[in-house]
Amino acid sequence: MTLSVAILGASGYTGAELVRLIATHPGLTITGLSGDRKAGMEMAEVFPFLTPLTLPRLQKIEDMNLSSADLVFCALPHATSQEVIAALPRDLKVVDLSADFRLRDPAAYEKWYGKPHAAPDLQKEAVYGLTEFYRDQIRPARLVAGTGCNAAAGQYAIRPLISAGVIDLDDIILDLKNGVSGAGRSLKENLLHAELSGGTHPYSAGGTHRHLGEFDQEFSALAGRPVRVIFTPHLCPFNRGILATCYVKGDPAAIHAALAGAYGDEPFLHVLPMGKLPSTRSIAGSNHVQIGVSGDRVPGRATVVVALDNLTKGSSGQALQNANLMLGLPETQGLTLAPVFP
Amino acid sequence: MTLSVAILGASGYTGAELVRLIATHPGLTITGLSGDRKAGMEMAEVFPFLTPLTLPRLQKIEDMNLSSADLVFCALPHATSQEVIAALPRDLKVVDLSADFRLRDPAAYEKWYGKPHAAPDLQKEAVYGLTEFYRDQIRPARLVAGTGCNAAAGQYAIRPLISAGVIDLDDIILDLKNGVSGAGRSLKENLLHAELSGGTHPYSAGGTHRHLGEFDQEFSALAGRPVRVIFTPHLCPFNRGILATCYVKGDPAAIHAALAGAYGDEPFLHVLPMGKLPSTRSIAGSNHVQIGVSGDRVPGRATVVVALDNLTKGSSGQALQNANLMLGLPETQGLTLAPVFP
Amino acid sequence: MTLSVAILGASGYTGAELVRLIATHPGLTITGLSGDRKAGMEMAEVFPFLTPLTLPRLQKIEDMNLSSADLVFCALPHATSQEVIAALPRDLKVVDLSADFRLRDPAAYEKWYGKPHAAPDLQKEAVYGLTEFYRDQIRPARLVAGTGCNAAAGQYAIRPLISAGVIDLDDIILDLKNGVSGAGRSLKENLLHAELSGGTHPYSAGGTHRHLGEFDQEFSALAGRPVRVIFTPHLCPFNRGILATCYVKGDPAAIHAALAGAYGDEPFLHVLPMGKLPSTRSIAGSNHVQIGVSGDRVPGRATVVVALDNLTKGSSGQALQNANLMLGLPETQGLTLAPVFP
Amino acid sequence: MTLSVAILGASGYTGAELVRLIATHPGLTITGLSGDRKAGMEMAEVFPFLTPLTLPRLQKIEDMNLSSADLVFCALPHATSQEVIAALPRDLKVVDLSADFRLRDPAAYEKWYGKPHAAPDLQKEAVYGLTEFYRDQIRPARLVAGTGCNAAAGQYAIRPLISAGVIDLDDIILDLKNGVSGAGRSLKENLLHAELSGGTHPYSAGGTHRHLGEFDQEFSALAGRPVRVIFTPHLCPFNRGILATCYVKGDPAAIHAALAGAYGDEPFLHVLPMGKLPSTRSIAGSNHVQIGVSGDRVPGRATVVVALDNLTKGSSGQALQNANLMLGLPETQGLTLAPVFP
Repeated sequence: MTLSVAILGASGYTGAELVRLIATHPGLTITGLSGDRKAGMEMAEVFPFLTPLTLPRLQKIEDMNLSSADLVFCALPHATSQEVIAALPRDLKVVDLSADFRLRDPAAYEKWYGKPHAAPDLQKEAVYGLTEFYRDQIRPARLVAGTGCNAAAGQYAIRPLISAGVIDLDDIILDLKNGVSGAGRSLKENLLHAELSGGTHPYSAGGTHRHLGEFDQEFSALAGRPVRVIFTPHLCPFNRGILATCYVKGDPAAIHAALAGAYGDEPFLHVLPMGKLPSTRSIAGSNHVQIGVSGDRVPGRATVVVALDNLTKGSSGQALQNANLMLGLPETQGLTLAPVFP
Repeated sequence: MTLSVAILGASGYTGAELVRLIATHPGLTITGLSGDRKAGMEMAEVFPFLTPLTLPRLQKIEDMNLSSADLVFCALPHATSQEVIAALPRDLKVVDLSADFRLRDPAAYEKWYGKPHAAPDLQKEAVYGLTEFYRDQIRPARLVAGTGCNAAAGQYAIRPLISAGVIDLDDIILDLKNGVSGAGRSLKENLLHAELSGGTHPYSAGGTHRHLGEFDQEFSALAGRPVRVIFTPHLCPFNRGILATCYVKGDPAAIHAALAGAYGDEPFLHVLPMGKLPSTRSIAGSNHVQIGVSGDRVPGRATVVVALDNLTKGSSGQALQNANLMLGLPETQGLTLAPVFP
Repeated sequence: MTLSVAILGASGYTGAELVRLIATHPGLTITGLSGDRKAGMEMAEVFPFLTPLTLPRLQKIEDMNLSSADLVFCALPHATSQEVIAALPRDLKVVDLSADFRLRDPAAYEKWYGKPHAAPDLQKEAVYGLTEFYRDQIRPARLVAGTGCNAAAGQYAIRPLISAGVIDLDDIILDLKNGVSGAGRSLKENLLHAELSGGTHPYSAGGTHRHLGEFDQEFSALAGRPVRVIFTPHLCPFNRGILATCYVKGDPAAIHAALAGAYGDEPFLHVLPMGKLPSTRSIAGSNHVQIGVSGDRVPGRATVVVALDNLTKGSSGQALQNANLMLGLPETQGLTLAPVFP
Repeated sequence: MTLSVAILGASGYTGAELVRLIATHPGLTITGLSGDRKAGMEMAEVFPFLTPLTLPRLQKIEDMNLSSADLVFCALPHATSQEVIAALPRDLKVVDLSADFRLRDPAAYEKWYGKPHAAPDLQKEAVYGLTEFYRDQIRPARLVAGTGCNAAAGQYAIRPLISAGVIDLDDIILDLKNGVSGAGRSLKENLLHAELSGGTHPYSAGGTHRHLGEFDQEFSALAGRPVRVIFTPHLCPFNRGILATCYVKGDPAAIHAALAGAYGDEPFLHVLPMGKLPSTRSIAGSNHVQIGVSGDRVPGRATVVVALDNLTKGSSGQALQNANLMLGLPETQGLTLAPVFP
């Protein structure tokens, strides 16, 4: 006897990753899949790697019967998501993977996303989905907002340091190296293999990336004062993974202790021994996160490095972890897959 | 209550892949790991992606206690394997991943591997591990020899066609595109990223590749007459996967029917609709195989294309599937992971 | 004092490659660049790698002044090219890189490209641009048609063998591994880095690829009888290069001798010693071609392997080589760049 | 009439890159190539991409006749270089690509390289080879020390900012993304394609990378006080290129002006318009450098991004540029190749 879930927006990468993860989840069955432009198609046509699975055919959302669903994952594009979720039954549990419900403040939403929110009441209701820090609110929540993948990576590095008061809040630099799947299945010239392989470049530099909205919200709340980090993501020629290299001012040993203390019991967050730094190659395809700390020859400086898979822990794996909590299932169920290497 | 397995040679890619797969296998526990040059180390030091798992420390084989093991996987290099297995208790179940027990004929072994076999009695005892075709012999076997990864790919394309008598036996060309993990974790100049990425080249061309020994043995036995195929592998800049493009003479519809008939009930072998050809991207990280057939504008010609993951179905996944059979477990247990994409 | 050339369709990869090559050509100056959708932009905006060069701004074709051009390169899409070239002054020298003038027979054109040719008189006038075999016709020609990149690779392997009568004409199999730049700068899902890296798949299989029109035309003319090859291209995760693995029936020594004899004096075609096979990594970025021959354990079988850069010798390098001939310049001028490795 | 040069250590990547560049240099001829372990071999055997070139066979250094050489490039490993150069005739011009003569202070050398220098007199004689800043000393020099590739990238970003006094000298963070060819042709597990592709990781973090010796020396000399930067390189899955993301405190407009002013007349250094940041894809295979500046939403913060090819401008191209100066040739001769894209 399994619980029933539907995935709205199953024709993108995060939707497909949800399907992959749920395929080995013993407590969940996928009973509905939507994909507007690809409605009527089998998932195996949209994603040939899903050929071996038995899955419902893609439908338009309006044609879906969600009455028997115990929970809905919403992997739709930003802006679309808020409209669709607003139209769902108000007692249906929802895990949203878009950016629509990450920011609690309507003004902040408008600032970063360029227009007023269409469902401000839901915005208030939504719980921020960074599992390890919002578990108690996620468990009883009806609507949980998945975090940005960069926002997850950066917060795993920095939150315990703010809480422990071990770093200078005015000098936090996050330099991220991002796998290309984070950009989604979108047809853009710079995402073509011929353009992207063989090099790297920064994007959304200078404090313009939307995930800064989440950093501002979360770090400031935690610190009890405004915190504004410097954040530069770089598009790199690999498909999965974010490496966040975080430059902070503070005592390296205290920083390592704060992280090790905060994550000691976490099933997916692994703090490496002092001085050892992680690689994205060690987490691909899994919900695991590796975190390392290095001191520096310059006293009072430290580098915290976080590696996670943007599609798993940075998105669909987090969503499933939250869904487990919301449905009363074991939190790690369906998420214990080891990383894939090489 | 789980069964206990040990992995000899756990510091190579096939050993690590076994660890990855067994990590989510509900019926098996890893109780011993060997790695001669890395004895004393934790697996997480040898393979940082295994950091999240709780695993025994690497030992020298002579220091291992195998008395409680229900089965041993032997992922040692060719030639070493036969010596190690010969020294194991004769009632211990063994799945060997090396080339040492693939060829039944001592003369064929000596021809392809350049020296006499050190354990000819075991060579006789060993069962050839191409699961779908040797299931009944594998189930009661004590020693099962994993097939070559190329040999698996080629046989999935060709065996049903020989059995069904639908192709010209004297005109079989296998052109393979091989991911680099098939070459193992060996320090060779041509396997460096700087050398290998960005291009492709053939290797072991002209009928010199050792997996031809398996093709000769199996195809000839099946046909009841000598069959010698043309086989050229190519090293390609991806980590996992073999794409076998097989050029044959015969009626495409009969060929497709032979494959669909042979594999209709197989859990891991998926024959695509006529004319649809697979990609290695659709099977990476999984035990699944996709098989397609295309006719040609030239009548009487067909192309059969097989995609499998050399580390999973071509090696460690096959080994686990065989171990399941030998241990009386469900054949697909621990092997239902969906492929990873992108 | 240099000659003046213009490039129509400079916003695609073959156009950009022409710019790159001409940048170090001592006898040519680029005086015009067209790019319809990007008219008004600097080349550095369209292709940031061209930032260091001083180049004319992109224009619409109708705004260009071609009266002072000594030669025009036409790197426009298929079908567009024939219309644009038909509208050019009839005494303007043109090297066309599209497929529009490769097939001499209007019926063949219609069969492979799905509609009647719009400029059948020009089709008759055009000379097929496989330099080494059409030099004498190219030198005085006004309109030269660049060959398909696959067609070039396959012909370098097979033409001398047909001419020398050393292979079975009814059993020629061309298995090609193709870099992704051959697909152009087009926004297609399967060309995204996330989709394409990490694997390979065949495409246009079964005798449907349009370059077969060229193989048919050229091989049949050479043989004096119809020749129809089997041809399967595979999209591979590298940007530049085609590796053509050609399976033929014939005596390997005679085959090697035919190739070495045919290409002994060619500046760009390098036949390797018997048994040595090339890699695409050895030709990237250059106009050079490497060709190898291997015998097989099966008597009377041989494999010919050709490696060339689809953007250079397979397209823009060939175009420049032909332009040199048409303009009375040294044939290799501007084309002696060594390959780039790693 | 060309000048004659020899390359010692031609079997590594920087040696091969020198050969590639000199191949189209109109004023230089390669008359000697050494490669100790590969002495007696043709370069085409060691680097098949050099097959089209006519080159001397590899020799042992002791077998070379350097009497007619006008200049020697020394691309030997660190530590070996100082011994070999000490044994060369003292009037022979030498461009060294190793780390042996980059640090002027013997104590600094010993600190970073772990043992005393074997040729301290030559250390004193050597001129630091960052062309744009040492041109006047390089021109008459006999021995020029090529800079570290990371050191070049970082200095192009920071030197003009120190000179102009527009940044905080105590808060300079250099986060580098490095192509794998910078690690050389060395047989290390983490450089294998299977290990390295598909991800990224930091290395030599925490102020331990040897190129910090150069940063310390150069920045402190320029500032007239000690300057110690934070520097973390990351190994990335591409072959050529370094992207240096440099976080500084200062006015973005002043920073941009300082860079634009410093490099306005430089043939190879291109400062992009304010806010535009470069990609390593735009410089691969060339001696060109692209430099961009971005301000930040946090006032008084700026990011300077430098992209260069570690094998060309970061090493062999720089060496050739310096050799041109030392030989009285035009500085850019043989170095005007456009980047290769895609």
